[in-house]
Amino acid sequence: MNGIRVGIIGATGYTALEAARLLLQHPQATLVAATSRSEAGTKLSQIHPSLAGRCDVEVEFLDPQKLASKCDVAMCCLPHGASAETVRELVQHDLRVIDFSADFRLSSVDVYEQWYGVKHPWPERVGNTAYGMPEFFADQIREADIVANPGCYPTSAILPLAPLVEADLIETDDIIIDSKSGVSGAGRSAKVATLYCETNESIAAYSVGQHRHQPEIDDLVQRIAGRQVATLFAPHLTPMDRGILSTIYVRGKSHTADDVIRCWKTKFADCAFVQPVDHLPATKHVSGTNFVQMTARDCGDRIVLVCVIDNLAKGASGAAVQNMNVMFGLSEDLGLV
Amino acid sequence: MNGIRVGIIGATGYTALEAARLLLQHPQATLVAATSRSEAGTKLSQIHPSLAGRCDVEVEFLDPQKLASKCDVAMCCLPHGASAETVRELVQHDLRVIDFSADFRLSSVDVYEQWYGVKHPWPERVGNTAYGMPEFFADQIREADIVANPGCYPTSAILPLAPLVEADLIETDDIIIDSKSGVSGAGRSAKVATLYCETNESIAAYSVGQHRHQPEIDDLVQRIAGRQVATLFAPHLTPMDRGILSTIYVRGKSHTADDVIRCWKTKFADCAFVQPVDHLPATKHVSGTNFVQMTARDCGDRIVLVCVIDNLAKGASGAAVQNMNVMFGLSEDLGLV
Amino acid sequence: MNGIRVGIIGATGYTALEAARLLLQHPQATLVAATSRSEAGTKLSQIHPSLAGRCDVEVEFLDPQKLASKCDVAMCCLPHGASAETVRELVQHDLRVIDFSADFRLSSVDVYEQWYGVKHPWPERVGNTAYGMPEFFADQIREADIVANPGCYPTSAILPLAPLVEADLIETDDIIIDSKSGVSGAGRSAKVATLYCETNESIAAYSVGQHRHQPEIDDLVQRIAGRQVATLFAPHLTPMDRGILSTIYVRGKSHTADDVIRCWKTKFADCAFVQPVDHLPATKHVSGTNFVQMTARDCGDRIVLVCVIDNLAKGASGAAVQNMNVMFGLSEDLGLV
Amino acid sequence: MNGIRVGIIGATGYTALEAARLLLQHPQATLVAATSRSEAGTKLSQIHPSLAGRCDVEVEFLDPQKLASKCDVAMCCLPHGASAETVRELVQHDLRVIDFSADFRLSSVDVYEQWYGVKHPWPERVGNTAYGMPEFFADQIREADIVANPGCYPTSAILPLAPLVEADLIETDDIIIDSKSGVSGAGRSAKVATLYCETNESIAAYSVGQHRHQPEIDDLVQRIAGRQVATLFAPHLTPMDRGILSTIYVRGKSHTADDVIRCWKTKFADCAFVQPVDHLPATKHVSGTNFVQMTARDCGDRIVLVCVIDNLAKGASGAAVQNMNVMFGLSEDLGLV
Repeated sequence: MNGIRVGIIGATGYTALEAARLLLQHPQATLVAATSRSEAGTKLSQIHPSLAGRCDVEVEFLDPQKLASKCDVAMCCLPHGASAETVRELVQHDLRVIDFSADFRLSSVDVYEQWYGVKHPWPERVGNTAYGMPEFFADQIREADIVANPGCYPTSAILPLAPLVEADLIETDDIIIDSKSGVSGAGRSAKVATLYCETNESIAAYSVGQHRHQPEIDDLVQRIAGRQVATLFAPHLTPMDRGILSTIYVRGKSHTADDVIRCWKTKFADCAFVQPVDHLPATKHVSGTNFVQMTARDCGDRIVLVCVIDNLAKGASGAAVQNMNVMFGLSEDLGLV
Repeated sequence: MNGIRVGIIGATGYTALEAARLLLQHPQATLVAATSRSEAGTKLSQIHPSLAGRCDVEVEFLDPQKLASKCDVAMCCLPHGASAETVRELVQHDLRVIDFSADFRLSSVDVYEQWYGVKHPWPERVGNTAYGMPEFFADQIREADIVANPGCYPTSAILPLAPLVEADLIETDDIIIDSKSGVSGAGRSAKVATLYCETNESIAAYSVGQHRHQPEIDDLVQRIAGRQVATLFAPHLTPMDRGILSTIYVRGKSHTADDVIRCWKTKFADCAFVQPVDHLPATKHVSGTNFVQMTARDCGDRIVLVCVIDNLAKGASGAAVQNMNVMFGLSEDLGLV
Repeated sequence: MNGIRVGIIGATGYTALEAARLLLQHPQATLVAATSRSEAGTKLSQIHPSLAGRCDVEVEFLDPQKLASKCDVAMCCLPHGASAETVRELVQHDLRVIDFSADFRLSSVDVYEQWYGVKHPWPERVGNTAYGMPEFFADQIREADIVANPGCYPTSAILPLAPLVEADLIETDDIIIDSKSGVSGAGRSAKVATLYCETNESIAAYSVGQHRHQPEIDDLVQRIAGRQVATLFAPHLTPMDRGILSTIYVRGKSHTADDVIRCWKTKFADCAFVQPVDHLPATKHVSGTNFVQMTARDCGDRIVLVCVIDNLAKGASGAAVQNMNVMFGLSEDLGLV
Repeated sequence: MNGIRVGIIGATGYTALEAARLLLQHPQATLVAATSRSEAGTKLSQIHPSLAGRCDVEVEFLDPQKLASKCDVAMCCLPHGASAETVRELVQHDLRVIDFSADFRLSSVDVYEQWYGVKHPWPERVGNTAYGMPEFFADQIREADIVANPGCYPTSAILPLAPLVEADLIETDDIIIDSKSGVSGAGRSAKVATLYCETNESIAAYSVGQHRHQPEIDDLVQRIAGRQVATLFAPHLTPMDRGILSTIYVRGKSHTADDVIRCWKTKFADCAFVQPVDHLPATKHVSGTNFVQMTARDCGDRIVLVCVIDNLAKGASGAAVQNMNVMFGLSEDLGLV
């Protein structure tokens, strides 16, 4: 067996498939187990035919003890609420976990319960869990038993915003985040709203000012930058598989787009995946990669920030592999494009 | 109330929405009723927000007697099996019906039951119902109580093939029909297989040699042309909302593509919507219209026929309106583009 | 010949095709002429195969005198600069013109020349030409020799904003307009940037703060509402053929989203195509129609307005037909969906 | 410098970009040079912003001697005709070349000149050059100075057909190949026909029976299988970036689909990328990978073969990297997914 042994929990969705694909390319990690309540007993490659002939992992019911005995780390792709329950069991069996859900991302149990509408199953671990953004939290991730893998939209907003707030380059109020996401962000469950003919040839705003990623953005910018921010977050469903583009409208404190780009270049100088650029980036420029491209433009009293990521890669499974690399002392970009 | 009063049964799907849209544009017909088991009690424009402000029809439970009292014709968009049951009740209340299902399309109860896997609920009316293709059956449609609205794929195959078989221009065996359809043909129910991220950026064959539209094509070509044909039908799911392109490989009886086009021009001279053309047509050329474009090319021993339609228009709801026009003595193209 | 005789100038592009399609459906107007420098001598249906069998208009070189003799109105689809030259010639031959270019939209020659980088060919007619938005300028359009057909993005921003500024419901500074447009807005000329594989599966911001539609929005809101506004306009190229969604971030003057919707309902009560709605509209809800759907949401200190149009319909050729209807004393919605 | 040093000639197109991306992931090859006539003097990452921050290669004018001095192999992405000229110069400077054009694929100068309409610039090397399909020609590729990288459509047809013809399982006449390709196969030059709004939401047949890949398919199947075949090839432009699905209609010699799959499994047992599967594969199942999935279905007198590849990967640049691996004695799948 080759290096780090990885198990994927909740293996039917798009983030699980993307994680499996990335692990197939990783020189020092191997996917050794996959679990699913609904699909146990089949091969992973039957659920995801793009793995045909490349992966012979069997899908099992989750048995935490068994999983802990054969894995070094679990990537948990369960929905919020259910995830925290499972993460607790896994950690109790000494398995390190990268949790794709929102259960351990926020600092406050109250904020979590208010926005997610459920009682938190393990409140003791809220607020003291590593947030899986190695650009800011590498030291915590390295030692972590649980890594809270970031939300896709938050990744596209926190990375450009946090350094500017930290460096006091921009006002912290009235920050407007207009985000556009591909449809894979909505997951793989059968819903009319994400049928091809509903979303194709159409763009729509949804959950304006009410999306659960808004408190995550606010919380993390504050944790990173030490200043409270007030954002307005408006996500849009865009007719494409992958990609998030966030257009962020801020007011500079007598600073310009040039200052912004310079700040980013300094902050992210040692980061493998964050690239301040001069051109206005398209989501296609980072599609299928773990890269982040961001730029800034002066527009009268405002500075406009534009940031693109692949929501399934840096916005989910790519970040998870990057976190795994950091957790196991490898180079953060090993096996990633 | 303006002219023909129309009711739509099973109003939640794409063909129902398309029918409603077409009726809104029709100068002598009005949508007066809509029914749905799952959505009764709401407005049709709440199910289909593209009707907002344009249509205030309420969605009701189906009451055949009540519907018959306020409509001149019903468009029945129920699934096969369920449809025949409902059509029988409507007809018993003297309501004329255009049936979108396959229940009354075939000549043989046996073939129906074999391919559809259900007992036919009203076998007496199989084989003596008008097939809703006015290009061949206008006289029957004019008098009909039930019109079996054609399948989408069959429309794209019968229209080019039947005149050639009838005129004895082509061999009747080894006819290969390779069809490509947009995703709306798969309907509006929540299934993983038609989620945006499953079908976008991908083309796939399905039901090769096993699709229920194959016996419909064979049956109708024989009824129209008086000769038995053997076709191989292979449908493909194509990443677009609308449109069917059928590429049909036939062998000419010492005839050429020119003979084929000439035959079509004669046959369809008085038909409003069928257009033999010289260019290789794309589905976009007929998108949103009731038109059919078809052409032919010589290729060695074979002649290749290419036919395009909009599956929701001429392949479903446009044909239904065309049939309604014929049933009520109007010009077949009234209100249609 | 049926009613109004229409000529289309510059007939090769998407807006010309859309205008031709709409005219084919119009009960009281007929397309009688089409011109193109590059394609003269062919049939319009050879340039646009979707017109095959439905339109036998020949494409000619433009001869203003000849065109004026056989048309009642011209729709001029030429690029800015070239358009004003041609419009002048047509008007001198007493032909009424609906101009799709930006040449007569703005109030100020200086602003035009600064943003468009050309000397205006006919400055005398700048500032005294009817702006083709019947919702605000029907009286002027009725009498006009030249109607400046609105820009696509401005239509999606002026319609929601102007009534609110006029009614003094919102602050006039720091209005942020984040617009997402389908690719047809970029026209039909051969450019790498709008190739399928460049724009598909990708969203990108462009011309942030520098797009020529920004001064048009500011100018018109001021003309309609009598107050100067400062907007920031950021357009985005979205992977779809048609549609514009504008998300507009304003600050209410102690007013709420409800007040906004109520204001719109009053203002647009007699307008055929503008529909304030409660749901968050998608571009697909108005695709292929001349309708405008708009809604509002409260978000902390901001109100978020969302407005959708079809850029080729209400954003271009549909508006042109609507304007034609008003110019010739017909109901504004005649022949339009 | 890491292992094999690679130069890309004609670096502006999609196959060049894909080759560059693949080389960035390759553990034993490095992109060291890129040339372009139109873009010399810029960075490769300015032409292709998806390479931003990941690749600092400068684009130069082609100087064969200079290129030969710093590279071990060239990937030549020039159009046919121009390519052969350049390949000759490169080979004369002892540089090994993988040629993406059709110039060295066919066995016969006459057939080449008839189908490509140009005089072949280096006829001496036609018919004695390795065809870059390691599944059949690994020995020749290993020693080759020139490798003719296969056409995209031929890859999807030769791989399933050749073993069946070789094993005498199918009739060699009346083979019908109905192929559906993503738009990237049409290249990156500015043409109206491949604009987003021309190809999106539309499928179309083109070059039916007249496409240049037809003689390539026939020639190679004969070279591999030792039997002459007669195919009818009908390509279709499909609204997606990547992927080819070929549906191939053959007649078995009293053999079945099961025999076909068994034959493939034996033939490709040692091939890294060819995967006979049971399910009907979609292009998405191999998108972004070098894999080939193929299956077979019995349909009356016919067997239907379905084969999917990614046209930019196994259909072009992935095959080139695979060929490079074989040329330099590496495992054929090194650095490839």
